[in-house]
Amino acid sequence: MSGTVYLVGAGPGAVELLTLRAARLLAEAEIVFHDALVPQAILALAPQAAKIAVGKRSGRHSTAQRFINKRLADAARKHRVVVRLKGGDPMLFGRAQEEIAYLRAQAIAVEVVPGVTAALAAAADLGVSLTQRGLARSVAFVTPRVGAGESVSTWLQTVLAADTAAIYMGAGEAASIGKALVAAGKSPSTPAVVIENASLDQARTVRGTLSELALLAAQLGDGPALIVLGEVLRNVASAAQPATLRTRRAR
Amino acid sequence: MSGTVYLVGAGPGAVELLTLRAARLLAEAEIVFHDALVPQAILALAPQAAKIAVGKRSGRHSTAQRFINKRLADAARKHRVVVRLKGGDPMLFGRAQEEIAYLRAQAIAVEVVPGVTAALAAAADLGVSLTQRGLARSVAFVTPRVGAGESVSTWLQTVLAADTAAIYMGAGEAASIGKALVAAGKSPSTPAVVIENASLDQARTVRGTLSELALLAAQLGDGPALIVLGEVLRNVASAAQPATLRTRRAR
Repeated sequence: MSGTVYLVGAGPGAVELLTLRAARLLAEAEIVFHDALVPQAILALAPQAAKIAVGKRSGRHSTAQRFINKRLADAARKHRVVVRLKGGDPMLFGRAQEEIAYLRAQAIAVEVVPGVTAALAAAADLGVSLTQRGLARSVAFVTPRVGAGESVSTWLQTVLAADTAAIYMGAGEAASIGKALVAAGKSPSTPAVVIENASLDQARTVRGTLSELALLAAQLGDGPALIVLGEVLRNVASAAQPATLRTRRAR
Repeated sequence: MSGTVYLVGAGPGAVELLTLRAARLLAEAEIVFHDALVPQAILALAPQAAKIAVGKRSGRHSTAQRFINKRLADAARKHRVVVRLKGGDPMLFGRAQEEIAYLRAQAIAVEVVPGVTAALAAAADLGVSLTQRGLARSVAFVTPRVGAGESVSTWLQTVLAADTAAIYMGAGEAASIGKALVAAGKSPSTPAVVIENASLDQARTVRGTLSELALLAAQLGDGPALIVLGEVLRNVASAAQPATLRTRRAR
């Protein structure tokens, strides 16, 4: 008889943006495997659990993934509640499928607990709805792959088609992303925001246009950052005072 | 001196998928304005508050929206904590911008609390990641408008371009959505799932292909339903046992 592995969304970073279910499972967990980017304040909700940092959000090594899979299965054979804690939501850029498939093949029970994804935390911080009546009824969530084969890249085509786009894990490649989008026909004057550490007190936001994307991203640090593009940002981009500051003061 | 209006995501329906912040604000609220679709079990977290049902998820009357705006402002002049509770996330198909703009124009403090959006709850119930390595790195979140001008509809183009699509508030128009997508070039054999009441015990899932979309949707009741399309669903669509059932039993 084995325990259950819970793939749990840790949300965008703020402790209070965990779900009630995530908090309960952390309190019950005997062992927690977490992404390197999950804040300590969230891990502190599982004081009784062994805590093991695994992988990176953008982990590239399939060997490492296989190793994580095996450790999760081993843990489930020893513990009743195993939590695999992932930044944001597990099913959106969380590489959950490989873990689910492996565990199911081992006949280990898996349950997924959804979380608040970074783009929605960014929208809340900015005070800007990603959809707006008469302006935006389609939103793209993508991770870019810049380089060969751009003309058929679905991330690129999806960003071109959508009214609003949230680009995950792209701030480090902002220059080539901006260039690829403009080359493909996206207007260089499309309003753009890059937000680092959305939902946290140390959140930072820079605003401009798609043509300035590289400059915007260069102003930020090395925290997790998200690029948002679209007309919904137009009034925000010209606002004298960042909505973020206003939001923080209101607390 | 006025209070603060908190635009709070109620999540997909399950009480445990509220965020800690949403639960805290409900416990502190003096008055709660909620969408008609927010479950009673969630409203029960605010036993002390006056509770007022306003609008519909897909509310179409700008008069009604103006009336909601005014009631929120009036409430903020009398109460310290005013919660405006919206299904899912406020900034994704939640019509939040009109309320934010009105309240700011009245110099009333507004804060947005993000929530778990329905598509992520559906992915968790299905056990299917919306993004998958080598298969899907772009996801479209859209609401359809079927009819005139389809050739330039961004919802349609975005669904065509994206690897995975989540179509909100479309189950009632499933026949015309399926027809429009196939006419625009989406493969009729694209795997499709329609899920009703995602995250709740009474969740129901039907699986098939895009060409069968109308038939699939017709099997469901009148709860909030979401359409998901994409190759990520291919194995699920042929699974003997719905992942939902397995998930429920594991609890």
